[in-house]
Amino acid sequence: MTQADRWMLPDGIAEILPADAVQIETLRRRLLDLYHSWGYELVIPPMLEFTESLLIGMGHDLDLSTFKVTDQLSGRTLGIRADITPQTARIDAHSFPRAGANRLCYAGHVLHTRPRTAMGSRAPIQIGAELYGVESLQADIEVISLMLESLQVAGVEQIHLDLGHVAIYRSLASAAGLDGEQRRELFALLQSKASADVQRWVSDNVADPQVAAWLRALPGLAGGCDCLARARDLMAGAPAELQGALADLQQLAESLAQRYPAVALFFDLSEVRGYDYETGLVFAAYTPGHGQALANGGRYNGIGAVFGRNRPATGFSSDLVSLNTLGRPPELENNAVLAPLAEGPDGESLWRAVEVLRGKGEVVISALPDGAEGEVQSRCNRELVLDGGDWVVKPRG
Amino acid sequence: MTQADRWMLPDGIAEILPADAVQIETLRRRLLDLYHSWGYELVIPPMLEFTESLLIGMGHDLDLSTFKVTDQLSGRTLGIRADITPQTARIDAHSFPRAGANRLCYAGHVLHTRPRTAMGSRAPIQIGAELYGVESLQADIEVISLMLESLQVAGVEQIHLDLGHVAIYRSLASAAGLDGEQRRELFALLQSKASADVQRWVSDNVADPQVAAWLRALPGLAGGCDCLARARDLMAGAPAELQGALADLQQLAESLAQRYPAVALFFDLSEVRGYDYETGLVFAAYTPGHGQALANGGRYNGIGAVFGRNRPATGFSSDLVSLNTLGRPPELENNAVLAPLAEGPDGESLWRAVEVLRGKGEVVISALPDGAEGEVQSRCNRELVLDGGDWVVKPRG
Repeated sequence: MTQADRWMLPDGIAEILPADAVQIETLRRRLLDLYHSWGYELVIPPMLEFTESLLIGMGHDLDLSTFKVTDQLSGRTLGIRADITPQTARIDAHSFPRAGANRLCYAGHVLHTRPRTAMGSRAPIQIGAELYGVESLQADIEVISLMLESLQVAGVEQIHLDLGHVAIYRSLASAAGLDGEQRRELFALLQSKASADVQRWVSDNVADPQVAAWLRALPGLAGGCDCLARARDLMAGAPAELQGALADLQQLAESLAQRYPAVALFFDLSEVRGYDYETGLVFAAYTPGHGQALANGGRYNGIGAVFGRNRPATGFSSDLVSLNTLGRPPELENNAVLAPLAEGPDGESLWRAVEVLRGKGEVVISALPDGAEGEVQSRCNRELVLDGGDWVVKPRG
Repeated sequence: MTQADRWMLPDGIAEILPADAVQIETLRRRLLDLYHSWGYELVIPPMLEFTESLLIGMGHDLDLSTFKVTDQLSGRTLGIRADITPQTARIDAHSFPRAGANRLCYAGHVLHTRPRTAMGSRAPIQIGAELYGVESLQADIEVISLMLESLQVAGVEQIHLDLGHVAIYRSLASAAGLDGEQRRELFALLQSKASADVQRWVSDNVADPQVAAWLRALPGLAGGCDCLARARDLMAGAPAELQGALADLQQLAESLAQRYPAVALFFDLSEVRGYDYETGLVFAAYTPGHGQALANGGRYNGIGAVFGRNRPATGFSSDLVSLNTLGRPPELENNAVLAPLAEGPDGESLWRAVEVLRGKGEVVISALPDGAEGEVQSRCNRELVLDGGDWVVKPRG
């Protein structure tokens, strides 16, 4: 093995060096403080769990994304978490149950066996917030608002918010009497935005001409707020669940336009992302020039049922590492104070002076013997010098 | 599978709920801020790496502690990190090399296949600091000082510091002409503190009567500062490396006594902990009533050699989760503000009032429909009410 091999990191795995690490840490604190100020309480779920807990009810994609290891203590299979959201659902259902609303937030590493996008990371730092126990649309408005504020805190200037509602597809699939396999087929076509294939599939598989017309209209119902009005016209007479979803999207659009007039809203009524997990509104935020969603989420009622507590749930999450690349990087500051090497009584008074400065928030770097302070010196624009028996801070020449 | 099975976490794996999570987050920030104020720069090494990078030169114990998975992209074996220190050594050697001193710090999850102690955690949050590039004892004094300050920040009131130096055993083993297997045998006896077995083994295996006497004296050389004086008398004529180690311990004791007079110092000259990794001073901090070390570290020169840069190195680390159990828990505060549900123009002015309060650091929890604010209400001792057209904060009745 060569030295270069030892340096090499796996594809999609990065180490974060000081300039970026400080920014990420700062953003992490600001986001967790934001969630705290909205009443969201921090939890720290474990990095690994039994796969039975981690993956139950979560669908095949998450299973494939999850690294598995054998537990030497129990002989059972453990998974390294690939998503923190189901862990918080378990916490809400079992170990931290509250009557009524339960607001939880988290930040931590997750690992994916394969990157979800080309060149994507396999080790995001997932940060997010989840709101359990409230069915009302007001809860969705709260978490979407919090997601938008998160992006503002991260310094994202132009935000595009994509909105969809999985009840639209689900109610039409039911009205068309599609069985499980048919639903998956049409789902795949809608997901790949293959409009012509959708038209053909619907003609071949859906007998009711009215339902077929509604399904065929779905791929065309994407765009700004006007597409909600078009949908209301086109879908007059559609199932009540669908009508309710459109009404929710309309009310959501009005609330968000009032709170965040600068955010551009887009609707995609054929959106089926997260169909085997999400149950209502789905949303994702983008910014121009960045292909991947910066943050996304949705409503996923019922996830806690397998843990014995079927609760309404809505939430969002984001990757702190990606998010950090979007804000304006702060100026690098080289404003530390260099403390000289001193011994005896001077050493004692120097130590006290250094402790006082550090207590005030100054960065003080102690010189060390061996002339070893090469690059460290460039971080210091001031130094501690003995002046008339006192240690004082002076600019470095 | 029963519901209780789905709730169950693997042995040694815990989830951290809000009351503890907030404390851990606070302690994490205070410690990272402390390291920052000493000039230590934050790095975020990856959760997993090729085992060749993660384990090289690190000894058998770490290998056994490390969960392994197969990389689906490369087919190679990956390890989930069980220790962050070797990762920072790689960063110092390769991706963030500095001329002279390089001060790095970190905080993050590690995973162990088996707990290191009975009832111990398999998922500590390792936090620590490492100082590369400086051979001098001053560097060890700096990191030990920083470790002691960390414990003070964590609220540990009585600190016992155990100090040892692996050069003492190493130089005597060389002087006795022990081969590799003999060294490991005697090492095991010393590690288990089996004094009578040490005496017997030395009589059977060491020919030189003077060296044998020195080795036999080792288990008895443990205790307060006086044991350094006894060691100097007993070891007169011992190899220069051993004399140097004793002199270092003496100077260290004097510096620490001056800086931290309340910290109790203990010496154990037969200490061989971390012998296949550490190369000089070794240290561990304890507090009465807590069996495990709260923090430990030592000098481990040369670890970077496998990455192409052989550098002096010293550092320490601690488990944030254990450390958090030692400080006094803060009083739980239920001082959030409840914002009512309001719509129309009142909703707009309410939203602005809430944003202002949150910006000032207040926790404001929005009421939601469905009467769903059960326990949330108990977190709020105040509420926003409309008073003469303005939203004002009033105590809750």
